[in-house]
Amino acid sequence: MRYSQWLIPTVKEVPAEAEIPSHRLMIRAGYIRKLTSGAYTYLPLGWRSLLKVIAIVREEMDAAGAQEVLMPILQPIELWRQTGREDDYGPVMCKFEDRHGRINALAPTAEEVVTQLAAQEINSYKQLPINLYQINTKFRDEFRPRFGVLRSREFIMKDAYSFHATPECLDAGYARMYEAYSRIFTRCGLRCMVVEAESGEMGGAGSHQFTVPCENGEDTIVYLEDGSYAANLEKAAVDAVPWPADLVACRGSAGAMEPVHTPHIGSIESVCEFLGTQPAEMIKTLIFQADGDVLAALVRGDHEINTEKLSGVASGRHVELADEATIESVTGAAVGFAGPMGLAGKVWRVAIDHAVAALAVGVAGANRTDYHVRNVVGGRDYALEGDNVVLADIRNAVPGDTHAGAALRFRKGIEVGQLFKLGTKYAEALGAKVLDESGHERVCLMGCYGIGINRILAAAIETGNDKDGCILPVSIAPFEVEVLPLNNDREDVCEEARRIYEALRSAGADALLDDRPVRPGVKFKDADLIGIPLRVVVGERRLKEQQVEFRRRTDAAATAVPAGQAGEVVLRVLREMRQAARPV
Amino acid sequence: MRYSQWLIPTVKEVPAEAEIPSHRLMIRAGYIRKLTSGAYTYLPLGWRSLLKVIAIVREEMDAAGAQEVLMPILQPIELWRQTGREDDYGPVMCKFEDRHGRINALAPTAEEVVTQLAAQEINSYKQLPINLYQINTKFRDEFRPRFGVLRSREFIMKDAYSFHATPECLDAGYARMYEAYSRIFTRCGLRCMVVEAESGEMGGAGSHQFTVPCENGEDTIVYLEDGSYAANLEKAAVDAVPWPADLVACRGSAGAMEPVHTPHIGSIESVCEFLGTQPAEMIKTLIFQADGDVLAALVRGDHEINTEKLSGVASGRHVELADEATIESVTGAAVGFAGPMGLAGKVWRVAIDHAVAALAVGVAGANRTDYHVRNVVGGRDYALEGDNVVLADIRNAVPGDTHAGAALRFRKGIEVGQLFKLGTKYAEALGAKVLDESGHERVCLMGCYGIGINRILAAAIETGNDKDGCILPVSIAPFEVEVLPLNNDREDVCEEARRIYEALRSAGADALLDDRPVRPGVKFKDADLIGIPLRVVVGERRLKEQQVEFRRRTDAAATAVPAGQAGEVVLRVLREMRQAARPV
Repeated sequence: MRYSQWLIPTVKEVPAEAEIPSHRLMIRAGYIRKLTSGAYTYLPLGWRSLLKVIAIVREEMDAAGAQEVLMPILQPIELWRQTGREDDYGPVMCKFEDRHGRINALAPTAEEVVTQLAAQEINSYKQLPINLYQINTKFRDEFRPRFGVLRSREFIMKDAYSFHATPECLDAGYARMYEAYSRIFTRCGLRCMVVEAESGEMGGAGSHQFTVPCENGEDTIVYLEDGSYAANLEKAAVDAVPWPADLVACRGSAGAMEPVHTPHIGSIESVCEFLGTQPAEMIKTLIFQADGDVLAALVRGDHEINTEKLSGVASGRHVELADEATIESVTGAAVGFAGPMGLAGKVWRVAIDHAVAALAVGVAGANRTDYHVRNVVGGRDYALEGDNVVLADIRNAVPGDTHAGAALRFRKGIEVGQLFKLGTKYAEALGAKVLDESGHERVCLMGCYGIGINRILAAAIETGNDKDGCILPVSIAPFEVEVLPLNNDREDVCEEARRIYEALRSAGADALLDDRPVRPGVKFKDADLIGIPLRVVVGERRLKEQQVEFRRRTDAAATAVPAGQAGEVVLRVLREMRQAARPV
Repeated sequence: MRYSQWLIPTVKEVPAEAEIPSHRLMIRAGYIRKLTSGAYTYLPLGWRSLLKVIAIVREEMDAAGAQEVLMPILQPIELWRQTGREDDYGPVMCKFEDRHGRINALAPTAEEVVTQLAAQEINSYKQLPINLYQINTKFRDEFRPRFGVLRSREFIMKDAYSFHATPECLDAGYARMYEAYSRIFTRCGLRCMVVEAESGEMGGAGSHQFTVPCENGEDTIVYLEDGSYAANLEKAAVDAVPWPADLVACRGSAGAMEPVHTPHIGSIESVCEFLGTQPAEMIKTLIFQADGDVLAALVRGDHEINTEKLSGVASGRHVELADEATIESVTGAAVGFAGPMGLAGKVWRVAIDHAVAALAVGVAGANRTDYHVRNVVGGRDYALEGDNVVLADIRNAVPGDTHAGAALRFRKGIEVGQLFKLGTKYAEALGAKVLDESGHERVCLMGCYGIGINRILAAAIETGNDKDGCILPVSIAPFEVEVLPLNNDREDVCEEARRIYEALRSAGADALLDDRPVRPGVKFKDADLIGIPLRVVVGERRLKEQQVEFRRRTDAAATAVPAGQAGEVVLRVLREMRQAARPV
């Protein structure tokens, strides 16, 4: 392609709206432009890269035996009501009423649609296993879209769904996808950490997340240095905090509970400031609901409750914060003043985080509006044991926590893919059943497997860049090699550049010729910015000696090569790069 | 691919909901399934075909110098207000309010988005011409979706937009797209008629429509037998109806106007029945608005008004039927009783169709509620001439009409693509301007070019089928060749089938192996139904003589070929078929 004819609007200024390097560079290199909040146009360069990502994903999914389909973006809301997920998604789901008064959801994902399809078209175990996938646009009405294409309202997802007659078959299908994902991300030049993940609102048990570690990621990975354990923050299991040696003594010597008037002071921070105490000494008391049951959860003031872990205490049911009326009826106080005292007698179950149980003396809400209480002692002022009292890991890990005795480490990252074992949740709700070998009806077991297509490109740039611009792997760079004539007014220079460019193209290299009538400095800067892996520079001075310059984007300096061999050199390096990016 | 592992749910029964062959066959052959009104899932076979269509479109667009981009589906409604097109689209546009209260349109097309992009990124004539295209999902909230994927609410469109500094450049870019379209449809095996078309709500002047003639098409093409003229119904120009020789005499001898009480009888049909007259004798009087101006249009009762033609009488402005209040104030009667008498003095302009002017004596509304009038004579009872009276072609052609003296012919067809010269409408509204060579600002000229991707496949099936199923061209059939072992229990038969299948695949043929453990009859029926162009049958009897059978989908009978040469034969025929489908 000829640069002069392409729309590559590079930008010198750092765009104010962009908070992280990949977002800044995708705008500066002319890959994307924002249309409106959370919706981006891919310009020719960005879209060319994305098409390469899509081709890799398609190749590996096909090779893994998955079958590509295309499901509608418009989905009848009734399907989402059948699985109860309209409420789970809430305002994140984009919806509109059509001219006939029907509510249409814009696909945030497609479990419902594909499961209904399976219910209609699959009826024998002989048709299983099957894996259907699509590469299609999805929608989430994010409250705060940000980081460019990393958290947008409209994005491209590869979503796959597998159906199985037995758990063993699901395990095998899941393993095959795990393998395909490893290949896909390797081929796209990403170094992923694979961690155990929560299946969360998807339902089911068993999930892995492929995450690209990087400073600006929105996900947190928790792992052990020796590699023996890794999980995302929602999943990472935490050892019980060791009890201090003097715990019993401290409790014994503690004074009586002492109420303090804390008018309109509800948040942990403001209470601490007011009382001159620390969040780590506070007992945060939260009231949840699981279906009809009310559940109290105690975590330390400096810890975050983990609702996925908490749902384990509620027999795996979905838990959500109780409404105001329930909280007031249980605690006898306005929201913000709940405390652990006497709760065990009033709720279905009390879940106490190990770190709370290890506190000798704490500060808590007084179960009385505008009051807190000091000197709250576990086992004395509230039950640490009992039929409906459970000590458990119900919070997110924090630095200092251990897992199996070893210190947990933390890393930020960008999630690019996730695998889920869904079990029978959707198949049950939508009637996806098969007859097994002995003629008995069985509900299908399902897996689902997502990849954020746009995130692959953004993650590649987030982890591959320097002060001059993008550094992209050869597999997904918009072009593999750029040929750059320095002296536009010298016919011999332009001629030689064209010759090399044409030779590369006919040998199957994806080449760009910068034929713009601009200064060499502009060409160099743009080449660095858009991040093409290889570059051949043809200049008057070198050409007099029958030489041109060759440089990888990552080389500190260029190498002179004989002009006649430039094509060969590029092709050899390209072959090496292409092979290096391909897992065996 | 192995048939046994693919989801190809063929159906024997003719689906009740499907009205036309392509819709029926796409369901029966397991290409598509309906999810909800006007939204279809493409199953593996249908999607595989569609991916081939997309690849052809992409190749030809790239070869024509267009650059692929991807624009968001979510579009801010403000853009549509800037061009005034929110109202033009009306209820056909899908819209929703997001959680921040902003209205998002779901792209029905992308003129606004691409023109705003050009306004931001293009500022010099040196960047022109440029052609940006995308292949993306579009939405129309059709009142009555039908004919399967032909008229659906969600569909895939290739939409391209070109920008130019001069009319000559637009003409050249338009011609290049015309050429690319011809190649695309030829390669997809479609025989199109190219006709002049109205640019309608798109604005601009100059448009061509690529239409596949077929009985069940929703579009009507009007043309001359000798090929010298062809247009769509909205555009086709009609000669003035010749005046009868005795027109003047008839008018002279006509009796006076005679009012008739026609209570609650407003429609042409009911008036004719009541008065014992014919629609061809009725003068239909319609009141329109163009911006502020009120316009009366007279057409014969058996003719249909053509608002695009009528807009020519209104200086090219958009015309729409006047509201009830305007009609009542102009005619002095309820809607349904308008007549031509005295209108010239009350409206901005009266447009009289030539066929009305050729009527000696007519029947019309009386401009009085519940009354019609007989013996209405042009030139006597209403003006045929005057400052604001125009005789013009303002209706759709009907059989019997002529163009340039020759009889017009009519054909139904499926529109698969359309080209438009948009002129400056969008560029003006959204500020897409460039500086020309002499430093003057010029508004960009634009063209836009659409292709209905799904329609290509549907049109290919609508025109390529027989009682047994689909007959698809090799370029877009889901597979090029099927290998069909007859005796599943004979290892030698299966072995030979596998051998031929593998040989074909390694030679680059897109082959399907029907390895299902089902009766030969089922395999034959399914092969015919899904419409794969070539077939190799391996059966016990023939194989004893080292032979297999080869058959094109369109052959009346199979030919025996030596088993060892089957691959060669198929590949030779395939090469011929592939080449035949490729324009030079």
